[in-house]
Amino acid sequence: MALIVQKYGGTSMGTPDRIRNVARRVKRWKEQGNQVVVVVSAMSGETNRLIALAKDVSPHPEPRELDVMISTGEQVTIALLAMALQDLGVDARSYTGAQVRVLTDSTFTKARILSIDEGKMRRDLDDNKVVIVAGFQGVDEAGNITTLGRGGSDTTGVALAAALSADECQIYTDVDGVYTTDPRIVPEARKLDRITFEEMLEMASLGSKVLQIRSVEFAGKYKVKLRVLSSFEEEGKETQGTLITVEEDTQMEDPIISGIAFNRDEAKLTVLGVPDRPGIASQILGPIAEANVDVDMIIQNVGHDGSTDFSFTVNRSEYARTLKILEEKIKPHIGARAIKGDNKICKVSAVGVGMRSHPGVASQMFRTLAEEGINIQMISTSEIKISVVVDEKYLELAVRVLHQAFGLDRTPA
Amino acid sequence: MALIVQKYGGTSMGTPDRIRNVARRVKRWKEQGNQVVVVVSAMSGETNRLIALAKDVSPHPEPRELDVMISTGEQVTIALLAMALQDLGVDARSYTGAQVRVLTDSTFTKARILSIDEGKMRRDLDDNKVVIVAGFQGVDEAGNITTLGRGGSDTTGVALAAALSADECQIYTDVDGVYTTDPRIVPEARKLDRITFEEMLEMASLGSKVLQIRSVEFAGKYKVKLRVLSSFEEEGKETQGTLITVEEDTQMEDPIISGIAFNRDEAKLTVLGVPDRPGIASQILGPIAEANVDVDMIIQNVGHDGSTDFSFTVNRSEYARTLKILEEKIKPHIGARAIKGDNKICKVSAVGVGMRSHPGVASQMFRTLAEEGINIQMISTSEIKISVVVDEKYLELAVRVLHQAFGLDRTPA
Repeated sequence: MALIVQKYGGTSMGTPDRIRNVARRVKRWKEQGNQVVVVVSAMSGETNRLIALAKDVSPHPEPRELDVMISTGEQVTIALLAMALQDLGVDARSYTGAQVRVLTDSTFTKARILSIDEGKMRRDLDDNKVVIVAGFQGVDEAGNITTLGRGGSDTTGVALAAALSADECQIYTDVDGVYTTDPRIVPEARKLDRITFEEMLEMASLGSKVLQIRSVEFAGKYKVKLRVLSSFEEEGKETQGTLITVEEDTQMEDPIISGIAFNRDEAKLTVLGVPDRPGIASQILGPIAEANVDVDMIIQNVGHDGSTDFSFTVNRSEYARTLKILEEKIKPHIGARAIKGDNKICKVSAVGVGMRSHPGVASQMFRTLAEEGINIQMISTSEIKISVVVDEKYLELAVRVLHQAFGLDRTPA
Repeated sequence: MALIVQKYGGTSMGTPDRIRNVARRVKRWKEQGNQVVVVVSAMSGETNRLIALAKDVSPHPEPRELDVMISTGEQVTIALLAMALQDLGVDARSYTGAQVRVLTDSTFTKARILSIDEGKMRRDLDDNKVVIVAGFQGVDEAGNITTLGRGGSDTTGVALAAALSADECQIYTDVDGVYTTDPRIVPEARKLDRITFEEMLEMASLGSKVLQIRSVEFAGKYKVKLRVLSSFEEEGKETQGTLITVEEDTQMEDPIISGIAFNRDEAKLTVLGVPDRPGIASQILGPIAEANVDVDMIIQNVGHDGSTDFSFTVNRSEYARTLKILEEKIKPHIGARAIKGDNKICKVSAVGVGMRSHPGVASQMFRTLAEEGINIQMISTSEIKISVVVDEKYLELAVRVLHQAFGLDRTPA
């Protein structure tokens, strides 16, 4: 008997019909002898509807109160799924994050999970019940309702799987797996059967949008076997999706690159003429972090004449706010020459554990882009990924030529 | 400094504009030096929308899950009101029923309040905050979310006022007070400045719909000063509404009757040929109570030939279910001759503490109805009320002639 955690997103829970579909799928897994814990998101559009309602009442809703409100989206879907399962004769019981209890810190709208009490769930599972838990939400030490930020339901799913030592955490979504790149841009993109956590982490963080990055980190850290599947495949015609594993693929003909990821939700900021002395990076990024702005790429080149330039990227929605912090709090404080910014950029990355043992990936990538006349603005590398920032207008072109240059349109032997 | 509990219904919270209006009113009370606790209902229509959604997924939603779901309506409005107050510079904090904690029994969809922990509220009030609490909901000993049934927000308001020993509990609604009868039927109906709890209880239970009956019982039991007010009156033009008091009005010229109440939501059931022996009433009403059907009027006349007829009324929506219980579980069990029912009836009542010291009210009532050719089907009396059941088609006529016969259209001296 396996213990499976399944997570269904907002599209899968979008209508009464789809909820009944999810219930039938859960029932099949249960009848195959598994214990099943289900994590659900709010119905698609509901969180946005609630946020719009909040903004209709208050231009800058207080985060604590926003969390009280938007957590209701999942509170509705857990109950609906429990009802649908009971109609199919499956004993089921719903829990909010506070009821489970998913303990988080008190960073409203972006809380982090501290611990999960698995006692209630374990008792219900032993009692032959399906347990349904509201994704995206928790409760802090003082009993305040918190939410985990966008995509937080994936994180809830993985965290529950870790707490329960589940055999597999299945993330059901509207795509049937992880692709070498976005098929809307490159029709030849292929579905990957397996991908490593590290690769998935790079793919997710670079905007592949299949899985929320925090959930992949969590899964890697706690060795949770994670699988991305489609909730729209018909009974009997389900595919295996993409398995995200700890083990690297050890076949002879490893592909060098697993996929081309991209992200157009970024903006770049540069602090020019920064005094080249120790501690300057934390003086720049400290106030940014305090304002709860997540920083992605960070680049600082060697200085000359005692000064250097410092660049980083943030989510495009944080662009104006970050620019203001730089101008008002950082520039005068550290004595920088000027602040520059650009929110018409995108990031394109080649990801793959294979590049560890294959030198020349970077040069092939840069050559391919150069041949198309695409100017590279920033470069950042890790062991398994190379990212470049280019003008937003080149996004599709860059993804297409890189996908082809690394042979991703060819089925591996 | 007074401690005021204010309750705003779904119409008062129906749109962002109205919520901001409520926030301004709360702010005025706060600025006048009062401590304010606010109880809110869901936005009008929201609870029905959620119930419809549940029924779209499941024909007979499980009560526990229904409560998880419909309690979200108030969870949204507490947050919205807190945001609106914060925008006005008023420090405010929202709580769900579970957070406060409003402890109830486990009768899902119809739970009863057992106790309220006023600690958190008291600390916030001392901290100069406005406290906002979700009406209609609570939590049971096991941590399950419960709801109190229709109109339960009034009960929450009164229960909080009792727990906090508040100076007054103000129920804001879309009418400006309690009237001698429904002005839509009798245009000469007058607003009452004061009414006793007992009278209000009779008025509310008979369908005046201004206040939920349980909240009036609660208020009477715990001596909470209750006031019904309009939330739609403009600033500076507010009236005093109707005060519901423990003390009887002791003016010289007491009116005999305070108002004419009516209810068309009832249905009558009769068990014919019941053996006239001890215990028969509980044998009939036991299974009805177990099915959670509330019984209103109960009439049993003296028997003859060892048998009697037993009649009672229930809410019209419970008519079919009650008929079925009588036919299947009660008739064969007690050996009754037949079951009869009628759901085209209404109840009309004259209410007033004054009738205690004025004989002849009943005969005047019956005479007035007889003069209009209205046949009385059932009669039930208490110390301060006389109710009759008549054919539904006579409702308006009966209310009008009784309102005039008791001089309710004349302003008291």
